[in-house]
Amino acid sequence: MVSIQVEALFDRLRAATSDGVGISRESYGAGESIALDIIEAEARAGGLICERDDGANLVVTLPGRDPALPFIACGSHLDSVPQGGNYDGAAGVVAGLLALCRMRADGFVPARSIKLLALRGEESAWFGRAYIGSSALFGKLSADDLTLPNLASGRLLIDCMRDAGVVVGRVAQGEALLDPASVSCWLELHIEQGPVLVARNLPLAIVTGIRGNFRHRTVECHGEAGHSGAIPRWLRHDTVFATAELITRLDRHWRTLLERGRDLVLTTGIIGTDPAEHALARIPGRLRFSFEARSQSTETLDGFYDLFLSECAGISEERGVRFVFDRRLDSAPARMDESLVARLRTILCDMGLPDEPIPSGAGHDAAVFANVGIPSAMIFVRNEHGSHNPEEAMAMDDFMLGAELLYRALREAGAS
Amino acid sequence: MVSIQVEALFDRLRAATSDGVGISRESYGAGESIALDIIEAEARAGGLICERDDGANLVVTLPGRDPALPFIACGSHLDSVPQGGNYDGAAGVVAGLLALCRMRADGFVPARSIKLLALRGEESAWFGRAYIGSSALFGKLSADDLTLPNLASGRLLIDCMRDAGVVVGRVAQGEALLDPASVSCWLELHIEQGPVLVARNLPLAIVTGIRGNFRHRTVECHGEAGHSGAIPRWLRHDTVFATAELITRLDRHWRTLLERGRDLVLTTGIIGTDPAEHALARIPGRLRFSFEARSQSTETLDGFYDLFLSECAGISEERGVRFVFDRRLDSAPARMDESLVARLRTILCDMGLPDEPIPSGAGHDAAVFANVGIPSAMIFVRNEHGSHNPEEAMAMDDFMLGAELLYRALREAGAS
Repeated sequence: MVSIQVEALFDRLRAATSDGVGISRESYGAGESIALDIIEAEARAGGLICERDDGANLVVTLPGRDPALPFIACGSHLDSVPQGGNYDGAAGVVAGLLALCRMRADGFVPARSIKLLALRGEESAWFGRAYIGSSALFGKLSADDLTLPNLASGRLLIDCMRDAGVVVGRVAQGEALLDPASVSCWLELHIEQGPVLVARNLPLAIVTGIRGNFRHRTVECHGEAGHSGAIPRWLRHDTVFATAELITRLDRHWRTLLERGRDLVLTTGIIGTDPAEHALARIPGRLRFSFEARSQSTETLDGFYDLFLSECAGISEERGVRFVFDRRLDSAPARMDESLVARLRTILCDMGLPDEPIPSGAGHDAAVFANVGIPSAMIFVRNEHGSHNPEEAMAMDDFMLGAELLYRALREAGAS
Repeated sequence: MVSIQVEALFDRLRAATSDGVGISRESYGAGESIALDIIEAEARAGGLICERDDGANLVVTLPGRDPALPFIACGSHLDSVPQGGNYDGAAGVVAGLLALCRMRADGFVPARSIKLLALRGEESAWFGRAYIGSSALFGKLSADDLTLPNLASGRLLIDCMRDAGVVVGRVAQGEALLDPASVSCWLELHIEQGPVLVARNLPLAIVTGIRGNFRHRTVECHGEAGHSGAIPRWLRHDTVFATAELITRLDRHWRTLLERGRDLVLTTGIIGTDPAEHALARIPGRLRFSFEARSQSTETLDGFYDLFLSECAGISEERGVRFVFDRRLDSAPARMDESLVARLRTILCDMGLPDEPIPSGAGHDAAVFANVGIPSAMIFVRNEHGSHNPEEAMAMDDFMLGAELLYRALREAGAS
């Protein structure tokens, strides 16, 4: 397969799963299954061995000299968000397919098997939970997860999984469908979902780690409502001014931490006074907002959480307001394997490309593989306009560079 | 009338216009008319002359020796917000009635007539416009105003006014129903609608001026939406962080201006990301908020507006966002008459009461009188829990002190 054939494959994927606006490959639904079928047909045509595992994922194998050794794994997911883009997930599967077909065509027989996993159910858009496919693989889905309703149809996840061919009995028991000890490493190529590579003019980057986060879906600031003209500053308990000061102080800490070399991003995606009671001339007595911090470092997250609480307490005291928090939600950061990262960076340099590793802010299946103890690493490919929308735009030249990097890394790993 | 009779009169007003939760005296509606009738009956019983002017307001007269001289006027409004309190407006009318009855009972004949005006239509809650009664009096209602629908029933203001007895032909022509030159001064007693007198432990205060304001109902901050994990700080155009910084900077200017002795209050009563697109993990690309500044000084308002625009421009440049403003709305401050204020403050001191004059943040009919050139002044009476709600609470002892102050001021004015 060369560039032109790859483009045709992407076009086929797009055409088969188009929804008129973008592409829709529902987790454990029709579009996703169609995409798996297309990749399987292509793999078979390339002389590779194909099977479906008990999680109904597609597994493509280039057999090694000793199939009993832990295998080298690569891949990504084939589902998408509704009205999504063609490359989020699929790029990694196609790159893996390209590498395996090329080794097969070259007559290269690796020391151990190399497998491509085309995973299902990575996007949280359909059931409100991310990484369903890789989590199922390692027995990490709870009963609560399995009874999540599809956000559109209301059908339960367990029923959708069964329809797609998953052996739901094993998944419901929390059985690992794949023994982590049987996998020597996980390499995932993925489009960058942020703007850094475009802004830095880099076609590729090696991922240093996948950010974890802490979140409050809702923080409520309670103050005192009142007539906007009749209450002077010293008698106000204004929740908007208090929260503005909180965010501004946290922003200042953020800048300082970045200058000290910490990895951190902060977001208040949701904020609002209550439409049932707010008014132009009424001091807002209540305000709700969300708060999220992400970092590759658990220590940074925990340290920042203390800072967050202490700033809330300081502002409460100064302004006579009160911050009320819902349950803190946590997601652990995932470390990429240092020696794998080093090998990928060396190959990148060998290819004559600039090397500026970056963290992944978005979550990926690689985080699940890393957190069950499998040495994991990721390659980001430059992409414009973010992801989760039909405007995502990866240049084929950049993709081919990423595929070359993955090929070299797999071949190097397969040599021993 | 003594304290106990006054309390009975307030009780009668409350009972006759109760709505089960608070009291409702709809502008140009039933409750307001009932209140006018109750005051008129009491005035007649006190031997005073009563009539209705062409604005259907109640005018109670204690005739002076020379009725051709410009008359002394006092009073306030008798309408209320829906489910409002008993004293907002009515306190000023009852205090004026008390003063006139007492002078009549004492056999005091003033040099010029003293009139009590029990006005209609001050609250904006019914038609979305404030000071309808006093504005009609001076020919200040526009055709747009007259066709405002009642926010509950949808009936037009002009029809409600006609039903209440207003000579709508004159009002529609913009004719002054009362010549400002025929009024020598306007004295209005009113409950304080803010918490300052309670906080400072003052039963009464003389009002230094009525704050004007500038407002934007909606400022939109435009930035760029994006994945909360995947976009580092230096590539963000986060509208919530930008607006938080804007508010925090304005708050800092506010504090500085107060320390320099300026009069100012700032409020963002409404703020919100768009529920149709916001999410916990999405950098907010758009935010809407309202902004209001109030001051007794036009110079302070204009100076602060420049500061506001300049901070918006600075933050736009630093953060790559854009602030888009709707039409600026202005309301001019009203100056209270300096010599009237001085006389009221002297009487307050004579009564042995502490004297700490304060501005009025809320609007009052006195602003309309002042802005047509009539020397005006106001007395605030301490009141708990703000206004426009059934919990407003004025102590009868405080009211009687306020009524005594008004009586002395009117009697002094009536001596010459």
